[in-house]
Amino acid sequence: MSSSSTDLESTLIDLKKVIEPELKRYLELSADCPDRLRDSMTYSLLAGGKLLRPALVLIACEACGGSRETAIPAACAIEMVHTYSLIHDDLPAMDNDDLRRGRPTNHRQFDEATAILAGDGLLTYAFEVISRHQKPEQAALKCILELAYAAGPEGMVGGQMADLQAETEKITKLEELEQIHLRKTGRLLRSALRMGAIVGGADDLTLSALSEYGYCLGLAFQITDDLLDITGNQAKMGKAVQKDQTHGKATYPGLLGVEPSRNHADQLIQRARELVSPLGERSQSLEQLASFVLNRDH
Amino acid sequence: MSSSSTDLESTLIDLKKVIEPELKRYLELSADCPDRLRDSMTYSLLAGGKLLRPALVLIACEACGGSRETAIPAACAIEMVHTYSLIHDDLPAMDNDDLRRGRPTNHRQFDEATAILAGDGLLTYAFEVISRHQKPEQAALKCILELAYAAGPEGMVGGQMADLQAETEKITKLEELEQIHLRKTGRLLRSALRMGAIVGGADDLTLSALSEYGYCLGLAFQITDDLLDITGNQAKMGKAVQKDQTHGKATYPGLLGVEPSRNHADQLIQRARELVSPLGERSQSLEQLASFVLNRDH
Repeated sequence: MSSSSTDLESTLIDLKKVIEPELKRYLELSADCPDRLRDSMTYSLLAGGKLLRPALVLIACEACGGSRETAIPAACAIEMVHTYSLIHDDLPAMDNDDLRRGRPTNHRQFDEATAILAGDGLLTYAFEVISRHQKPEQAALKCILELAYAAGPEGMVGGQMADLQAETEKITKLEELEQIHLRKTGRLLRSALRMGAIVGGADDLTLSALSEYGYCLGLAFQITDDLLDITGNQAKMGKAVQKDQTHGKATYPGLLGVEPSRNHADQLIQRARELVSPLGERSQSLEQLASFVLNRDH
Repeated sequence: MSSSSTDLESTLIDLKKVIEPELKRYLELSADCPDRLRDSMTYSLLAGGKLLRPALVLIACEACGGSRETAIPAACAIEMVHTYSLIHDDLPAMDNDDLRRGRPTNHRQFDEATAILAGDGLLTYAFEVISRHQKPEQAALKCILELAYAAGPEGMVGGQMADLQAETEKITKLEELEQIHLRKTGRLLRSALRMGAIVGGADDLTLSALSEYGYCLGLAFQITDDLLDITGNQAKMGKAVQKDQTHGKATYPGLLGVEPSRNHADQLIQRARELVSPLGERSQSLEQLASFVLNRDH
């Protein structure tokens, strides 16, 4: 393990220690939220994930000269949105998955109705958290727009719809595949960077550099995800592998081959690192993150 | 038909003519939103409903001295949230309904996965619409908080969870039933009034009077809904009637009897009218609305 990846691992562990208690605190809801609903939301939100998206929010905020803590509401909100999307994607009517992060999926642990409502609850609550807690107000409103656009019908939800349709209308072009992934995962990752930059008070130039960095990182992340589905280890991944091929899903290695996919991810990460290098020393974590995405094994 | 209910009907028809084209316009999404997703969202959003909640937003805004048009984004957003909740509530894992507003429910017309995504899309997009279009910015942020809180785990989603649980853990107390309905429908209706008041620049006293008006209206609405399930006509309602009894659901007439339920609704509406009477002439539509809820036959 290189020293920079060790540094990043420790940064991510540090950030997780900051974010996890805040997520817990936000889930201390009044008795108006039925126990079963809160349990179900908590089960998936605090499932021991890497908390990569909220970490990105805090890292971007810091890279723009802001203080980490100021972006915590936005950071927690994006994890709620990400978690809701996993819960709904796993449903029988969607991907029908039984296993997620090494544990039963939400609807297997609870039931389908509860899982649908837990997802709805997390999605809605994400916007409550930003509107109630994110300061300053102007940044809060911008963060809501970023997150809603990234997660909405022209973003993540649209990408998931396109992905489901692609199972019947086979994808043969790289461009189509890229369009799905940009919506399904890219825009949300990008919004993490943008929200952090907004709270950190970034100027327009920095905001747009971090935006493009987010796009590159998101696509590279998807490519390595596809590669891990082929080469990964079920125990490390905490979910079933080699599912894509079984389901006839279009993937980067499927369309491009394994080596060219690796090269493509490599180029994207190269570009991502270039984009943030003007930030100087403050870009360190962002550059490390880029390398991490490329070299991750889970 | 009394003259005031004629006035209200024409007010609601006028408002529908204002709101419906705006809802359509908001659904003109870019090609990033797959056609099937947009079609499914449109199918339910423009299903010919009364648009009561958005009308309430505009009426409240006007009653507080604002101009109707200024509250259109918030008005459209609440209809999106209401529609999403209907789509998800109708799903097989939830209420398993085939008919809604006289047409096949969303998952019957499309499929389950599409219906889940259409609901997710409408919910997310509601927050995008407010954050992008509602002015002034300060009011936009407050509206988002109102809507998210009303629709979230301590509001509508919590109420739906409690309602599902009540099917197995039988409700015998009026208080429990009221707690479910306050969350399931009351808070969202209340948020319509509050959002309109906020955009209309209401002072704290007026805001809290409209809030309580909203609560009363919401509960009365639920009671008349329960009554219509017993006495209503399937053709007029556009959905199956006498379902509650078949499903063993707790209802006001079930717990209180038909006449006492009518009296309870009557008292709530009385109180609602008193609350808004200090607004003088501007309260006219709100008073008419209260009478309408009491006397509706569909």
